[in-house]
Amino acid sequence: MAAERLVVIGGDAAGMSAASQARRLKGPDEMGITAFERGHFTSYSACGIPYWVGGDVAERDDLIARGPEEHRARAIDLRMRTEVTEIDVAGQRVRSLDRDSGETSWTAFDKLVIATGARPVRPALPGMDAAGVHGVQTLDDGQALLDSLDRAGAIRTEGPEGRRAVVVGAGYIGVEMAEAMLKRGFEVTVLNRGEQPMATLDPDMGRLVHDAMDGLGITTVNRAAVTAIRTGPDGRVAAVETADASYPADVVVLGIGVEPETTLARAVGLPVGPHGGLLTDLSMRVVGHDNIWAGGDCVEVLDLVAGRTRHIALGTHANKHGQIIGSNVGGGYGTFPGVVGTAVSKVCDLEIARTGLREKDARAVGLRFVTATIESTGRAGYYPGAQPMTVKMLAEYRTGRLLGVQIVGRDGAAKRVDVAAVALTAGMTVEQMTALDLGYAPPFSPVWDPVLVAARKTVAALRKAGTA
Amino acid sequence: MAAERLVVIGGDAAGMSAASQARRLKGPDEMGITAFERGHFTSYSACGIPYWVGGDVAERDDLIARGPEEHRARAIDLRMRTEVTEIDVAGQRVRSLDRDSGETSWTAFDKLVIATGARPVRPALPGMDAAGVHGVQTLDDGQALLDSLDRAGAIRTEGPEGRRAVVVGAGYIGVEMAEAMLKRGFEVTVLNRGEQPMATLDPDMGRLVHDAMDGLGITTVNRAAVTAIRTGPDGRVAAVETADASYPADVVVLGIGVEPETTLARAVGLPVGPHGGLLTDLSMRVVGHDNIWAGGDCVEVLDLVAGRTRHIALGTHANKHGQIIGSNVGGGYGTFPGVVGTAVSKVCDLEIARTGLREKDARAVGLRFVTATIESTGRAGYYPGAQPMTVKMLAEYRTGRLLGVQIVGRDGAAKRVDVAAVALTAGMTVEQMTALDLGYAPPFSPVWDPVLVAARKTVAALRKAGTA
Repeated sequence: MAAERLVVIGGDAAGMSAASQARRLKGPDEMGITAFERGHFTSYSACGIPYWVGGDVAERDDLIARGPEEHRARAIDLRMRTEVTEIDVAGQRVRSLDRDSGETSWTAFDKLVIATGARPVRPALPGMDAAGVHGVQTLDDGQALLDSLDRAGAIRTEGPEGRRAVVVGAGYIGVEMAEAMLKRGFEVTVLNRGEQPMATLDPDMGRLVHDAMDGLGITTVNRAAVTAIRTGPDGRVAAVETADASYPADVVVLGIGVEPETTLARAVGLPVGPHGGLLTDLSMRVVGHDNIWAGGDCVEVLDLVAGRTRHIALGTHANKHGQIIGSNVGGGYGTFPGVVGTAVSKVCDLEIARTGLREKDARAVGLRFVTATIESTGRAGYYPGAQPMTVKMLAEYRTGRLLGVQIVGRDGAAKRVDVAAVALTAGMTVEQMTALDLGYAPPFSPVWDPVLVAARKTVAALRKAGTA
Repeated sequence: MAAERLVVIGGDAAGMSAASQARRLKGPDEMGITAFERGHFTSYSACGIPYWVGGDVAERDDLIARGPEEHRARAIDLRMRTEVTEIDVAGQRVRSLDRDSGETSWTAFDKLVIATGARPVRPALPGMDAAGVHGVQTLDDGQALLDSLDRAGAIRTEGPEGRRAVVVGAGYIGVEMAEAMLKRGFEVTVLNRGEQPMATLDPDMGRLVHDAMDGLGITTVNRAAVTAIRTGPDGRVAAVETADASYPADVVVLGIGVEPETTLARAVGLPVGPHGGLLTDLSMRVVGHDNIWAGGDCVEVLDLVAGRTRHIALGTHANKHGQIIGSNVGGGYGTFPGVVGTAVSKVCDLEIARTGLREKDARAVGLRFVTATIESTGRAGYYPGAQPMTVKMLAEYRTGRLLGVQIVGRDGAAKRVDVAAVALTAGMTVEQMTALDLGYAPPFSPVWDPVLVAARKTVAALRKAGTA
């Protein structure tokens, strides 16, 4: 019997995890694996780019978990700089273009994995393609930005010229890039379309981020929609324009977000959801297609709290998807039950975390809820280095079921959200949470952990609302 | 109608939390509250004593959450330095002794709260009461130890004399006191009866603690049972003797553990469990007694994983008990479902955490299990300051239910155990845990959180054992 043929489109986290896991389960005599990557790199941490740009991570290659040769050593036929341009679903083959030689060819598959990732949102505004305007999705993007910073640095004077960075967008990429630019010695302005930075939080919690960024010397301008990028006589970026003002800029970083890259899949009618991502079943198989799987930034995932799909581009999900797809295509078994929407990020020493639903998410799916917000510290108040932390909690009216948690604070704030992530997964009520046996010792927590304090206050809010 | 009379025995975490919560629910016209404390202090953090002794916490009073006057301001009749010497259950009254005046009196109650805490285990060995031998259970103990350190410091010479500390016991108090003594400039030897330090961990994980303490310059001697304390001509401690050796000591700290202080309760036949602690129902009412509650270090708690009671002296439980008792005696409602056995501690920058069952605990209750141990880091490997972390996980054979987690590592290791604590409470399987949506960003976690890596390896171990 001929070996089964597996084709993987996309050489980053989801695609190469799938290929590697499949290879673990099936030897080369049982399964041939071909993977296509249109860029220069495989299996790298896009999430690490802000830290490389900021100088915390010294080398680009530090972000690469596994290079092409390592994959090839495991008998994966990896085609770098080769872009899949067409999927022939009925014919079970993909057409690819070698971007260096310009040659195209067809490759047959028995099983197909689509891991085409996401592409940055790049609004069609004047000047958006000018030199000095940078996305930060890929390692190539990161290198281009670093080159741009060097150039900006080379023309520095005593005045602010040559060291003004404008970051467009105040989501997690935006705030992480604001930190990176600050570390590189730039004056940083963040232009944010929304009411507060970190729209992944409720505005009251986003306000805390705003104030903390202010304290770090980062200027955040809210309700600032970019209308144009103005260029100088040299064609490089000179300023970022909004309806109200003009912000001089030597470097512009776009942190506006991403959308699923599903051009190929949509061209052949594979099902996409309301957020533009491919729809899969629990085994990560594309809905309606027994021999096509999809995972990573190009799919929608089930939000277990909201009961509907979302698009979340995050390396940790992509790795899980790849692992599960690799198990399933390799004859094993795995499912991805969904997410609860956990995300953590930081700006300098400020930690920001969320899981579950924001107020507007809960409203959007018809949930009625109460909220409570508390302030506490990450360590016992008397222990050196104890820092303030704000925890906001949402619970469903009547049932008291936990719906979401947001945390803004410093040392030890971010990963505390994991407690809520597990509680959400388990469907716990906030009353049940008040009894959780969380680790306590003065260097690590007050005697009542901030999450427990928030749970207690949410229970009180439920009682006040006449439901408990 | 006359006001109801509540009597509370013990003025620390459980007792005063109960009194305070009862007062929140019932005004002085509805309920009279009398609390007896035999010592000098109320509502203090005994867990903070090692950090005060070590110099991280400057002042004794920093450890006091609420002093006598604050309690009295809330209309709690607090009798300091007054020891309850007898409970008359049928007569609904307690006899107390004013330790300053020597006077005794009876106080009637409608409802009684027993929060008598724990007392240090102090083996009856020669020299145990010598000057320079210190427990660290109370603030008075801490002050006496600090005085002793001053004295030891005053006779320091160029040699080691005057700065040799021996810590007896290598549980969490022992290792925390080892850090404190180290910080005070002492040469520290820890004498440990067991096979490895931190007997709250399995020996393989305890070994990691041993090695790390070694690296910190703390000498740990295992299988070293103390036989005597040898004193010098001045009557002060001179050395600690074991069967095999003699350890010169200028100061000795006892960290051997505690046992429930239930002398009063046992004298009148209140029910105690196999570990000597009072037995209560879910509302923290003493079994068989409708008007007597007990909480804190003097009770046994239900271990939700093992399905039987344990004695755990820990401020976080005591505070919860007090809160629940106060609600119940005040006409509200609260229950304490039990614990999963979470504990975190540190020695310098080494973090140690556990939750659920150790191997021997699982065996003791008839559970068959598999284990897996992994090494990972607390941050993405490429992120500055990423430190190694070892996670051991136990899961039940066949069902795959999580049974316990132990973690030894550095930055970010300890509180990761909370994820497992919630998963244990929810009765999750390790397979379910592999899909947990935990916070990921390079400064906070590798793309697979160490707990997820451990869960995956435990799933593999289950599969190998033929059960999954």
